[in-house]
Amino acid sequence: MEIARPYLLFLGDVPDALAAKTATGIVDWRKDWCVGQVRLQGCAADTGLPDMSIGEGKAAGAQTLVIGAVNAGGRLPDHWVTSIVEALDAGLDVASGLHVRLGDIEAIKEAAERNGRQLHDVRLNTMTFATGKGTKRSGKRILAVGTDCSVGKKYTALAMDKAMNARGYDSSFCATGQTGVFISGRGTALDAVIADFIAGAAEWLSPETDDNAWQIIEGQGSLFHPSFAGVTLGLLHGSQPDGFIVCHEPTRTKMRGVETPLPSIQDVIDLTIQCGRLTNPDIRCVGIAVNTAALDEDEAQAYLAKIGEKHGLPATDPVRFGMEAIVDKVSAEFGAP
Amino acid sequence: MEIARPYLLFLGDVPDALAAKTATGIVDWRKDWCVGQVRLQGCAADTGLPDMSIGEGKAAGAQTLVIGAVNAGGRLPDHWVTSIVEALDAGLDVASGLHVRLGDIEAIKEAAERNGRQLHDVRLNTMTFATGKGTKRSGKRILAVGTDCSVGKKYTALAMDKAMNARGYDSSFCATGQTGVFISGRGTALDAVIADFIAGAAEWLSPETDDNAWQIIEGQGSLFHPSFAGVTLGLLHGSQPDGFIVCHEPTRTKMRGVETPLPSIQDVIDLTIQCGRLTNPDIRCVGIAVNTAALDEDEAQAYLAKIGEKHGLPATDPVRFGMEAIVDKVSAEFGAP
Repeated sequence: MEIARPYLLFLGDVPDALAAKTATGIVDWRKDWCVGQVRLQGCAADTGLPDMSIGEGKAAGAQTLVIGAVNAGGRLPDHWVTSIVEALDAGLDVASGLHVRLGDIEAIKEAAERNGRQLHDVRLNTMTFATGKGTKRSGKRILAVGTDCSVGKKYTALAMDKAMNARGYDSSFCATGQTGVFISGRGTALDAVIADFIAGAAEWLSPETDDNAWQIIEGQGSLFHPSFAGVTLGLLHGSQPDGFIVCHEPTRTKMRGVETPLPSIQDVIDLTIQCGRLTNPDIRCVGIAVNTAALDEDEAQAYLAKIGEKHGLPATDPVRFGMEAIVDKVSAEFGAP
Repeated sequence: MEIARPYLLFLGDVPDALAAKTATGIVDWRKDWCVGQVRLQGCAADTGLPDMSIGEGKAAGAQTLVIGAVNAGGRLPDHWVTSIVEALDAGLDVASGLHVRLGDIEAIKEAAERNGRQLHDVRLNTMTFATGKGTKRSGKRILAVGTDCSVGKKYTALAMDKAMNARGYDSSFCATGQTGVFISGRGTALDAVIADFIAGAAEWLSPETDDNAWQIIEGQGSLFHPSFAGVTLGLLHGSQPDGFIVCHEPTRTKMRGVETPLPSIQDVIDLTIQCGRLTNPDIRCVGIAVNTAALDEDEAQAYLAKIGEKHGLPATDPVRFGMEAIVDKVSAEFGAP
């Protein structure tokens, strides 16, 4: 799916900032794609964008109302439906990361048809894909992998894409999860694809490109996560990365949502290379990205120095210390832009 | 899904035996679940069961009409729809392995509602699953894995289940593909599950059972197949096998449908153990099952002796030489029944 820009972000009346993290993520990385935010009375979240009515957003050039917040319970409240219908009647498309399908709500479906507008359900996959082929595509690719789910793979890929572009590389970000799709304006939530087509969808998400162009691919799950490793392996095979970055959170002891202990960074490097060789025999690790939020600055630097030396790789916290060290490694391994 | 038995097998008017391989597979393994076959004029397939009309099948006790053949082009021909409606009106459920959803055909949907009958679309997954948990379940499990797709994993699992039961083990077959679901009467086509739930579906397919009971689980794909390895890994993690059997076809050089070379048997053993340890630290290989159809009897025996010695494991062709050697290995490793 391709989502028309610029966006008008709908935050509804969510009771806390976390419920609007999709909107916050979009503003963090694509503020220039957003004309403003729509907040209903009582909204406790704020992206910092100008507050607007839907009509004001339309007048400011918005093409799509993005539902950038989740309500409790997963149902779409009636007063949110009212806002969505108002946006469709104003001539906007609507894109949602909610579990509920927009077109399943009669008033929204009718308003979209009446106005000839698109409805995008980013979390639900409605595309069909071919099965993966495993053949080499032109262009170069970097995949974020992890010792667990939710260890900063999306942030790392976005920061790497930004740093690569700043250094003169022709780089683009490839989204594989719902917030990422809003940030890239294209993609699909890989975990919502039918199992037979995971690798095929990953091939579609990182298509053939110029020999010197780089695709920085958002990772999903972990090869060591007993719930989601199948998605991770299909993504690894389909994205056939030349390089990968291992993302890690050093204070976590068990994998998210299960009782399984965290693998070591070396475990992840070894298994990623072993499995990744199937579709890219030259796959290699280009760095380690650590979320050091739980450590103070001295501890963080000491930790990064220690694991960098241990693995012979650049280790950084993308938030605190940027991605320059890993871009240097890419430059040394694959050449300057 | 649970499919009511006994079955009446519908073969339609398919032009060759291969088009009815689902029906043939059911008769090979569960002849006693079938009361007869329904063939239309011109049908070139024959399961060897008594020919019956739908009314005769109902009178013989059939509970479900199983569409055990595929027509060319994937559409359901109008005269097949007529037979299906006749079956529903006669009080039978209908189960299908076709790509088309039975309930999407208005006449079938209406007949099912009119008669209060069930429609089962085995190839389409309509169930919801939890995500995988990775926690150890009681009971013992054997999974068929492979160097490729379509190397005899279903046949091997069924033959192993039969041989285990014959030796006095409390064994059952767990289906993960469409023909397997008809043969087990329960299950889901794992490749049709949403990617996030592969491991969770595999956990549901091989649930907690008695400590001494064995589940023999149909495999899917290969960890080395660039299209389907994600399904294979999710199945491995979810099924947490105690033992696995590597299935192999010795004349194949490339993996099915792609240009990727076949892995070695040792590659498959090593990676299956490495990944399988995540949810069962004691996972081990209990044997090798080879489809030797392309070899004459002497060649087959020589080949099996060679790879058996090389890997220190029993190697057999389930069709030609049975599964006794692998049951012996299970008995030696895990104890007599």
